[in-house]
Amino acid sequence: MLLSEEVKEISKKEKISEEKIAKRVARGKIVILKNVLRDIPPVGIGKGLRVKINANIGTSPDYVNIDEELEKGKVAVKYGADTLMDLSTGGDLDKIRREILKIPVPLGTVPIYQAGVESAIKKGSIVDMSEDEILKVIEKHAKDGVDFMTLHVGITKESLEKLERQKRIMGIVSRGGSFIACWMLHNKEENPLYKNYDYILEIAKEYNVVLSLGDALRPGAIADASDRAQIQELIILGELVDRAREKKVQCMVEGPGHMRLNEIEANVIIQKKLCKEAPFYVLGPLVTDIAPGYDHIAGAIGGTIAAYAGADFLCYVTPAEHLALPSVEDVKLGVIASKIAAHAVDIARGLDYELDLEMSKARAELNWKKQFELCIDKEKAIEYRKRRKPQDKDVCTMCGRYCAVKLIKRFKNEADS
Amino acid sequence: MLLSEEVKEISKKEKISEEKIAKRVARGKIVILKNVLRDIPPVGIGKGLRVKINANIGTSPDYVNIDEELEKGKVAVKYGADTLMDLSTGGDLDKIRREILKIPVPLGTVPIYQAGVESAIKKGSIVDMSEDEILKVIEKHAKDGVDFMTLHVGITKESLEKLERQKRIMGIVSRGGSFIACWMLHNKEENPLYKNYDYILEIAKEYNVVLSLGDALRPGAIADASDRAQIQELIILGELVDRAREKKVQCMVEGPGHMRLNEIEANVIIQKKLCKEAPFYVLGPLVTDIAPGYDHIAGAIGGTIAAYAGADFLCYVTPAEHLALPSVEDVKLGVIASKIAAHAVDIARGLDYELDLEMSKARAELNWKKQFELCIDKEKAIEYRKRRKPQDKDVCTMCGRYCAVKLIKRFKNEADS
Repeated sequence: MLLSEEVKEISKKEKISEEKIAKRVARGKIVILKNVLRDIPPVGIGKGLRVKINANIGTSPDYVNIDEELEKGKVAVKYGADTLMDLSTGGDLDKIRREILKIPVPLGTVPIYQAGVESAIKKGSIVDMSEDEILKVIEKHAKDGVDFMTLHVGITKESLEKLERQKRIMGIVSRGGSFIACWMLHNKEENPLYKNYDYILEIAKEYNVVLSLGDALRPGAIADASDRAQIQELIILGELVDRAREKKVQCMVEGPGHMRLNEIEANVIIQKKLCKEAPFYVLGPLVTDIAPGYDHIAGAIGGTIAAYAGADFLCYVTPAEHLALPSVEDVKLGVIASKIAAHAVDIARGLDYELDLEMSKARAELNWKKQFELCIDKEKAIEYRKRRKPQDKDVCTMCGRYCAVKLIKRFKNEADS
Repeated sequence: MLLSEEVKEISKKEKISEEKIAKRVARGKIVILKNVLRDIPPVGIGKGLRVKINANIGTSPDYVNIDEELEKGKVAVKYGADTLMDLSTGGDLDKIRREILKIPVPLGTVPIYQAGVESAIKKGSIVDMSEDEILKVIEKHAKDGVDFMTLHVGITKESLEKLERQKRIMGIVSRGGSFIACWMLHNKEENPLYKNYDYILEIAKEYNVVLSLGDALRPGAIADASDRAQIQELIILGELVDRAREKKVQCMVEGPGHMRLNEIEANVIIQKKLCKEAPFYVLGPLVTDIAPGYDHIAGAIGGTIAAYAGADFLCYVTPAEHLALPSVEDVKLGVIASKIAAHAVDIARGLDYELDLEMSKARAELNWKKQFELCIDKEKAIEYRKRRKPQDKDVCTMCGRYCAVKLIKRFKNEADS
């Protein structure tokens, strides 16, 4: 884990000294995403760095269109996604992954999807995948250049037992987690990823794959949040963070999910403690369950609170969540909502604040061209403004000639003259 | 301020004892919106009650379409707005207001708009309105049944001086605030609303109009937030809260605006202290300035944090903010974003949590019909699901046959049998 070139690049981008970054990488508080085989700008995630956002793309068994997934990837990056994850479960999975790898941002995968799907196709069911097949998929992804992988290593007999004893409304909602759980139930064996963790660490080390320790038991309902099963799994993930660090393998930890907002800070604090400050990668969290069609907003609210409490990496949620595979437009909306969350936290910490300042100055000058340049989504802003044309060109149709900024200017000039 | 019938109704709706509500109303910690002349269900705002949301509608000089504004009002109420404000500045203002008053929720207005606009039309400029004309508009609105009025009483020579000395990026962005400031600059006189506050209190008392003490000096840029001008005005508003309470007039206080998220809690705490727990009515706050086209999301994030810190009433922000007069669709999107914020805070406090629980149960059962019924926006959710039809009818196209919920059910049954 020397990564000296990468540390240098990240130091420049994040405006933090190389020494600090190198030290935090060495201690596992920062991870650097970049498979040794890839030629992309590295992305750093963790303590003191800007909050990063990820966009999930990929086919589903019901809907396979590689071009559309590639378009989603490009749109996501255009609007500010720092990384992509390929969650494909339909079509030619190798081909799709290799195409997405052409987009020059770190790529994450969930290898158990491919192992399970191929097993279902070849052998009839996801639970028929062999341990060897699972490990081979992980190795293939590493060799393809995948930069980080979600591995649901913390769903073990121990954590499943806690789940069983306690009951839940939604049970297991993690797709990868459900593959492992079903495999364990069917084969009556320990989690194959957990059993083979040492071997996985060797692969990860060889290619500098960052392990994203998945939360198979993440709550899928607000009612299930912060329960014993979830925290039990987190304890196990904490132990696995230790083991990764011993082998000089970079790792981060995944977190909820669905959660009332009063529980979010506690979850971040507990993750940071149990996992010794490993970067925290959260999905949402969604602060209400009744907003299907608008879960990008529920997720942006939860993500903001989580990131401000110390979460390092936000997985976006699209408006299609819980309803359908997202469209290109959904991906765009999801990325923008997540970007607003991440940026709001960054500026609260004094990072990248110049953008907002420039925007305010452009507004004070009624300089529309400059305002558009500074927007997260320039085209959308222009479209809004064009839709309703003001009679006075320097204002907008909200206030028209009664624009506060314009009125004050005029009467201040009058008073001063 | 006996309001005993209203206290009873609110007690039922909010599931809090009548005694508690009556006591809080008497102390000014809760206000009840309902002009004595109106026959609508009263809405309570303040300590211990559900977070309420307001939707602004109304014409602008560049765009006058009464039917569209009425449609906006109805759509806003449909998606959860507790109150409406008519901010019209174009067309027949009396007619528009009286039409909107037919929608059975509390209505707020900003009388200075009408006074200014009519003065501009009749006399050439907003600054030509006389004090008497301003007061007559206030009285007319009260007699029409308006339930609350924004009055920018805190922008005085004292607070304007503080603004002048300190400088700002955006200066004054409140439209009503700018009307008053321009009037003061032009006529070299004290704020006419401040001067005539006692008379205004008399009108308010007669009709049970809740005064919403406006923040003319609210920051219009993140850079300007929490500055001396803003806090100076808040101190003056605090004094005016005292004077309203002495006269048994209900009042609330308006707040920012644009603000980095790390300042939001402090703003709520300070408002509650300076204004002796008068209900706090915030606009946003927007946690970044670079999200035009998505300010409903930036506002929902800020609104959530504000409400969780104690703000009682959220004014929605639409995606058209800073760009154009909103459309009906923008109003809908703004209300829903704001509703998510308010509801997220309510459930964090244990209120209305049953909805989310029911949704989770319906999800666990893959009961789509029930899920749709519980959605904030049922039509949108159905539309998403219809857009991409899953091969298996009980799942969605995100995971298709690899639906975690379905897989787990199957293999748990297998293991149990």
